[in-house]
Amino acid sequence: LVGELRPGDVIGFTFFTGYMAMFAASIFFFLERSQVEGHWKTSLTISGLITMIAAVHYFYMRDQYLASGQSPTEFRYIDWTLTVPLMCVEFYMIIKPFGGKVSTMWKLIAYSVWMLVFGYVGESLDRPSSALWGAVSTLGYVGILYEIYLGDVKKIAVASNDASTLKAVSLLRWFVLVGWAIYPIGYMLIPGGLLSGLSLNIDLVYNIGDAINKIGFGLVVYSAAVANSQAHH
Amino acid sequence: LVGELRPGDVIGFTFFTGYMAMFAASIFFFLERSQVEGHWKTSLTISGLITMIAAVHYFYMRDQYLASGQSPTEFRYIDWTLTVPLMCVEFYMIIKPFGGKVSTMWKLIAYSVWMLVFGYVGESLDRPSSALWGAVSTLGYVGILYEIYLGDVKKIAVASNDASTLKAVSLLRWFVLVGWAIYPIGYMLIPGGLLSGLSLNIDLVYNIGDAINKIGFGLVVYSAAVANSQAHH
Ligand SMILES: CC1=C(/C=C/C(C)=C/C=C/C(C)=C/C=O)C(C)(C)CCC1
Ligand SMILES: CC1=C(/C=C/C(C)=C/C=C/C(C)=C/C=O)C(C)(C)CCC1
Repeated sequence: LVGELRPGDVIGFTFFTGYMAMFAASIFFFLERSQVEGHWKTSLTISGLITMIAAVHYFYMRDQYLASGQSPTEFRYIDWTLTVPLMCVEFYMIIKPFGGKVSTMWKLIAYSVWMLVFGYVGESLDRPSSALWGAVSTLGYVGILYEIYLGDVKKIAVASNDASTLKAVSLLRWFVLVGWAIYPIGYMLIPGGLLSGLSLNIDLVYNIGDAINKIGFGLVVYSAAVANSQAHH
Repeated sequence: LVGELRPGDVIGFTFFTGYMAMFAASIFFFLERSQVEGHWKTSLTISGLITMIAAVHYFYMRDQYLASGQSPTEFRYIDWTLTVPLMCVEFYMIIKPFGGKVSTMWKLIAYSVWMLVFGYVGESLDRPSSALWGAVSTLGYVGILYEIYLGDVKKIAVASNDASTLKAVSLLRWFVLVGWAIYPIGYMLIPGGLLSGLSLNIDLVYNIGDAINKIGFGLVVYSAAVANSQAHH
């Protein structure tokens, strides 16, 4: 630790909790991998990678935050660049046994790259026009929502006729709709953003979002994996 | 971390993403190794070694880059000295069950040592003559291309009559032809090089090349391993 955690530092508190929770979640997913069957093992590997990648970045963010009272936006995007596509892979893994196509996965990944590239431009490179870039970025987010609520993912989940697949997909969808919506809120808190009037800390918002979306998302995949592995025994 | 990641530092961004992606890929290959059969396990071990070796070097390159704004060329060659021969081993592993010979592997390794030794001379020891050394180095690259497109590797892949082997070899070949061609482009960006006029950062080019060639290459091997293990069940 370069800096020091001071009493009353709530944001520092969430950086520590976030780091530890991500780390613990990774160990959980990697170890419990042996409890599930077949392709669900790969799903748990990916859940574990998502939280492990986050743990490493929380480690750096926490250090830089303790040392300087700030954490550069870049770390968030470095993290998302890797974890959001992995979440798209999770959707694909779940629908694959029922005829899910790789092209669906690439569509989801393309939408998320679009979302993240323009978000990064607005949040780091061109803040004065952040509202515009945010709107462009949101098109990618809407694209993802379309695919999972109305497009390919939805159709295959319905056609699967498999209760646990259907349940997993509809829970994960809810994460994307409600949980992921926390990030644009954080984005609008940057100086000059639509919500910059609120005295809410952007790191606090992102830390809460990550806990829900990375660990929660992974736990849903884990439950589906366990349910499914028991059903097929 | 010795230095600090500054907002808007795109190259620093790719060093971080590269490090994390290599690290995550290694864990993926090592864990998923248990999902495939027989000699494919060894192939995944090697895929994981390639990305793990890269992760360690990215760790050092990133640190030196953050501290000084530069990353010495030596790290690239240290990495390639180990990873390129391992990729030659991957080709051999795939054709071995169909009569691939160890001598083919040694031929590929000899060509890559030639390529790397003269590339290093031109990029680090004798920059004024970099064009000449680059040309000499390219002979090694052409030798590899010859072996995999027309020589031993091609012949055995065709004779194997095995669809997934054929598909893996032709995908991996494409990586060598198109993906590896990114490196000579980076090489020509050094001061005095043929492309030094372009305002393109050499580390950016090499970082992109590595992501494609190490992780992408490994994932192709992984897909072949999964397809093949299922077919033989
Ligand atoms: C729509 C939108 C955004 C959405 C970001 C999202 C949805 C990020 C999700 C991250 C996740 C799920 C990480 C978990 O591992 C940005 C880029 C803030 C820019 C403003 C518009
Ligand atoms: C042809 C040529 C080169 C080729 C380098 C290559 C092809 C490197 C491949 C590296 C890989 C695949 C690493 C991944 O792990 C050099 C040495 C730049 C020198 C200029 C001529």
